[in-house]
Amino acid sequence: MNEITRIRMIIEYDGSEYHGFQRQANANTIQEELERAIARLTGEKVTVWGAGRTDAGVHALGQVIAFDSGLSIPEDRWAIALNTYLPRDIRVLQANIAAPDFHPQFGSKRKTYVYKIYRANLGTSFYRRYACCYTDVLDLEPMHRATRHIVGVHNFQAFCASGSKVKSYEREVYQCRLLDEWPWLTLVIEANGFLYNMVRIVMGTLLLVGQGKLQAEDVVAILESRDRTRAWLTVGPQGLYMLKVEY
Amino acid sequence: MNEITRIRMIIEYDGSEYHGFQRQANANTIQEELERAIARLTGEKVTVWGAGRTDAGVHALGQVIAFDSGLSIPEDRWAIALNTYLPRDIRVLQANIAAPDFHPQFGSKRKTYVYKIYRANLGTSFYRRYACCYTDVLDLEPMHRATRHIVGVHNFQAFCASGSKVKSYEREVYQCRLLDEWPWLTLVIEANGFLYNMVRIVMGTLLLVGQGKLQAEDVVAILESRDRTRAWLTVGPQGLYMLKVEY
Repeated sequence: MNEITRIRMIIEYDGSEYHGFQRQANANTIQEELERAIARLTGEKVTVWGAGRTDAGVHALGQVIAFDSGLSIPEDRWAIALNTYLPRDIRVLQANIAAPDFHPQFGSKRKTYVYKIYRANLGTSFYRRYACCYTDVLDLEPMHRATRHIVGVHNFQAFCASGSKVKSYEREVYQCRLLDEWPWLTLVIEANGFLYNMVRIVMGTLLLVGQGKLQAEDVVAILESRDRTRAWLTVGPQGLYMLKVEY
Repeated sequence: MNEITRIRMIIEYDGSEYHGFQRQANANTIQEELERAIARLTGEKVTVWGAGRTDAGVHALGQVIAFDSGLSIPEDRWAIALNTYLPRDIRVLQANIAAPDFHPQFGSKRKTYVYKIYRANLGTSFYRRYACCYTDVLDLEPMHRATRHIVGVHNFQAFCASGSKVKSYEREVYQCRLLDEWPWLTLVIEANGFLYNMVRIVMGTLLLVGQGKLQAEDVVAILESRDRTRAWLTVGPQGLYMLKVEY
């Protein structure tokens, strides 16, 4: 019996064909695929923890996972070895031996998500699973102004899917920026943590500002209201990517 | 009964989930989807012609199609109207009324294809359907030299899938270039016409040059040999895109 070590990995996945990260009955999930591949590689039945539970259709460019294994293979061979057992839409990018108490979710200090909008009058055949396609005109200037109201320590209850239970709705957003690279419009948002659907509701609210249905300054009042019905637009999962998790 | 007009369209499609362009029994094809959508829009049973028959898994950014219709709608509404009936992985980008004798295949003067290679040691979850993933080292300098031997008027029988019947194997390649934009490596090839699998065999041969299995100058001898077994590597369909057709 080898010594048990905790393995930490950075993975990417195309979430299009999965019912999200977290294992569930009768549905294909990222966690299940990872656990199955690890079982085939190591012969061990393990539980894989992730830094966050991405929803159905949401992607990851830098999800962090961890699990324990008694398999003794060099650190730098883990990625190649596990990739041979994983479906092609999930790839291990990096693997390391972690501290025995490392937990990808509870240990995380900040996370970065991106949300991609593809602006095309007639739609897009290629990016329909990888972006939210937007066909109308957007006024970017008030959208940029609105992003600045998101930055900082706020109670984000208005930007949290109703019904989700958390101890606190307070989060600190370190960065909230829109990158305008026609035809792409990309939201980059970095925080010490995110509430359920928070990025998709922030993006939806920014779109309402870009359409002139809300003013940039309304974001301040919406935050203060803590009222989910004031930030009512949640954009689809297909444009959302977990980009980075820091510890 | 309205006057019949010939409609010409530029379309894009993600070929991942189709058995190629051309209609066939018991298989989902681009042509069939187009004809079905046109029937739903116009009530007419039409035949759609394409500029080229892309294979299963091959994509198009600028395929040209044509068909006849008695439906009288303004030229600039055709794209939006037909897009509402098409699956989301096929999009009409542009529509015009064409001359009554316009034929997208027989009238074409030059076509441009691109072939995309994605260089990543550990594979790619996002581009597996949109590029050929390459994990080894490639020596680009001899690959660039090899592309120059492809340009010009040549008998391309060695670069044509065996068994395909054509009157002449002679084609003129106007442009054959590799664009190195890490991690992408993109072949752009423009010719007065292409033989069956020609782009995929040219790309396969360039890869063999990049791996040192062939010398750049071997391409000259392979062309002269007219021997398909000398250019034996055909890369997969998923990296191939029909970019442009000119008349």
